[in-house]
Amino acid sequence: MTAKAHTLSAVPDADALIADMGARARAAAKLLATAPTAAKAAALHAAAGQLRIRADAILDANRRDMADGRAAELSAAMLDRLRLDDARLNAIAGAVEAVAALTDPVGSEIDRSTRPNGLALSRVRVPLGVVGIIYESRPNVTADAAVLGLMAGNAVILRGGSEAVHSNRAIHAALAAGLAKTGLPADAVQLVPVQDRAAVGAMLRAQGLIDIIIPRGGKGLVARVQDEARVPVLAHLDGINHLYIDGAADPAKAVELAVNAKMRRTGVCGATETILIDRAYPAPLAIIDALIKAGCEVRGDKDVAALSPHVTPASANDWDCEYLDAIVSIAMVDGLTGALAHIDAHSSKHTDAIVTEDAAAADRFLAEVDSAIVMHNASTQFADGGEFGLGAEIGIATGRLHARGPVALEGLTTYKWLVRGTGQVRP
Amino acid sequence: MTAKAHTLSAVPDADALIADMGARARAAAKLLATAPTAAKAAALHAAAGQLRIRADAILDANRRDMADGRAAELSAAMLDRLRLDDARLNAIAGAVEAVAALTDPVGSEIDRSTRPNGLALSRVRVPLGVVGIIYESRPNVTADAAVLGLMAGNAVILRGGSEAVHSNRAIHAALAAGLAKTGLPADAVQLVPVQDRAAVGAMLRAQGLIDIIIPRGGKGLVARVQDEARVPVLAHLDGINHLYIDGAADPAKAVELAVNAKMRRTGVCGATETILIDRAYPAPLAIIDALIKAGCEVRGDKDVAALSPHVTPASANDWDCEYLDAIVSIAMVDGLTGALAHIDAHSSKHTDAIVTEDAAAADRFLAEVDSAIVMHNASTQFADGGEFGLGAEIGIATGRLHARGPVALEGLTTYKWLVRGTGQVRP
Repeated sequence: MTAKAHTLSAVPDADALIADMGARARAAAKLLATAPTAAKAAALHAAAGQLRIRADAILDANRRDMADGRAAELSAAMLDRLRLDDARLNAIAGAVEAVAALTDPVGSEIDRSTRPNGLALSRVRVPLGVVGIIYESRPNVTADAAVLGLMAGNAVILRGGSEAVHSNRAIHAALAAGLAKTGLPADAVQLVPVQDRAAVGAMLRAQGLIDIIIPRGGKGLVARVQDEARVPVLAHLDGINHLYIDGAADPAKAVELAVNAKMRRTGVCGATETILIDRAYPAPLAIIDALIKAGCEVRGDKDVAALSPHVTPASANDWDCEYLDAIVSIAMVDGLTGALAHIDAHSSKHTDAIVTEDAAAADRFLAEVDSAIVMHNASTQFADGGEFGLGAEIGIATGRLHARGPVALEGLTTYKWLVRGTGQVRP
Repeated sequence: MTAKAHTLSAVPDADALIADMGARARAAAKLLATAPTAAKAAALHAAAGQLRIRADAILDANRRDMADGRAAELSAAMLDRLRLDDARLNAIAGAVEAVAALTDPVGSEIDRSTRPNGLALSRVRVPLGVVGIIYESRPNVTADAAVLGLMAGNAVILRGGSEAVHSNRAIHAALAAGLAKTGLPADAVQLVPVQDRAAVGAMLRAQGLIDIIIPRGGKGLVARVQDEARVPVLAHLDGINHLYIDGAADPAKAVELAVNAKMRRTGVCGATETILIDRAYPAPLAIIDALIKAGCEVRGDKDVAALSPHVTPASANDWDCEYLDAIVSIAMVDGLTGALAHIDAHSSKHTDAIVTEDAAAADRFLAEVDSAIVMHNASTQFADGGEFGLGAEIGIATGRLHARGPVALEGLTTYKWLVRGTGQVRP
């Protein structure tokens, strides 16, 4: 227990609250684990219906959060993440319906074998159990995370950020009303009713009650969760992503991919933050100019800065920076080997890409870069569960265990071994 | 950081030692990640050869540990776990060769798809990276864990128990000498050279240096690791395993399975600890008598105790006890529903089994029991990587994340996503 957690544990109410919610979630999870796909899908459709029926109440609640947020002088970016309108709420309801249409992983067989003694073994997917989600600002996470967890057969305990408290309650009430119309337990989706930080501490310590914690939010939140948690964590950390322009890159692709990977949306975790250019690549200036023309600030190493007066010199810090903004750092490297060394030293192991027409170079890059997603001739902005055909995502896992890269329904399950015998005893 | 860890971190040497070992392991892991299967297999064969060539030195070292152990008045069971002889050492070398023959999971494709925009996605298995193994007494773990980790492409940091220090060093020296004869890096398998507990604390905090900690040992060790670790842990906890004799069980199978599941080897984690008997089962006394005849102490609930004067009354504690001994607790239950409720309340979620000829009852048991391994008409003693056809095991994971049940090569890998494009940008 950390010093901080120790202080928190002095608040018995939070522990009692989470113990009670956890016990109810566990009971719900038992029922959800064997709930038929059709029952889960029906619940999600009912929840989507309630989100639409209760649109006025949800948007009213969101206006209260927005007013509080403006009074609290939240940044424009945070206010934008917080804000709901008819179109955004409709998109949330649509996403719920889309999850209802996904293939249910629960019960699917991963593999099977028969042993020489006749024992028939199979591994089948089962839900993780009780999933705790701790998140900030975006009220859509309340619906997205709840329904992904639920569709994979899990009970979900949600703890949203204070800034979205009214929106989250209204969305949760709609989900609960939807569930109530179907046979699934009301405790399948619970929202922590208090906003004090002690409840987060209690969730992080709730071994045996919560099976996994998924933090969704900024670096501070994820770092706190990783530092304090006793419950296993599926973390989504930064995307310090690289695009390497090999000497054998097609120049047209190189320019187009560099601009898209950096500038399509600069605030997403799949955005490229550093571009590495092979010294052998013939047209580096075209890439730099295209980025600048697209409105990107370019910070370059000495060699890159020498190419254009519009390039700012990069500091050592720039190579470890997730800008999430219209800023890129660019370095010249000595071929593929130089690129691999730079990526090994600076990548956050989220998504890294190579642009080249040299198949052997691409194969080596794909084999040697140790990131959750490694790409050849594609924009790093494709790092997304929807783009990967998963239908949705609860985040992009940057750890190495359990699940890596975009996490959707399968990542919210585990497996068990079934052994069918005819009376075999072990000699 | 726990209070205990805080004290430990006051020993800077341990942190510096583990930081150095971790950095060398990381460098080795990079090479191992792309090492061909043949190179890894050759290294394992060379290591097995060295274990045989150095048998005298290893057995001498083991005699020192045994003498120290006797002086320290270790229990007979601990001394037996510690003891090596020609046959045991030969078995260790044979196990190393068996692992060399297993299918290499690294590079295998889990699944693939092509997106409508032409992007080709595949998930391929990659090593976990640097695996830390913290274990007690059994010197064979030094070889078993090292070669399983290595064959799956990982660098391994071993920290064995003080009682086996000389044996572990001798075995490690043999493995290192084997590696040195092949092209694999010497730092692929490192043994922590000091025995103070601060080194364990440093390993548990080595985020970024060690990717996963696998504790192998008693409850105290595993609990300490789970409590202190900042690095993800793949834990193997107790096997409080149940055998449920359904009303529709075949009486001959029921007796044979009960005796085998409990008594074949009582000290293994797959041993049955509690037998549940359906009140509708016609011949409970035959099961009790067979167990007693096999030398087992039977502790029963009121109804079981009423059946035989040889049954001791069970206390409440008996239903949560991993005896690892010739003792069993037996309760009468109200059919399958009663059995499921008892198992839900008391199982450690390792292995639970049903004996029945009723297919519907078996299906419900397999679906509803939430344990890593669920069996029908088979002895819980089959809970073992070798028996499951995995060739070996590093343990039986009782957590829910990453891997569950017997963990062998596949459980020592993760995956990455490869995305192959032709210049696609995201709209």
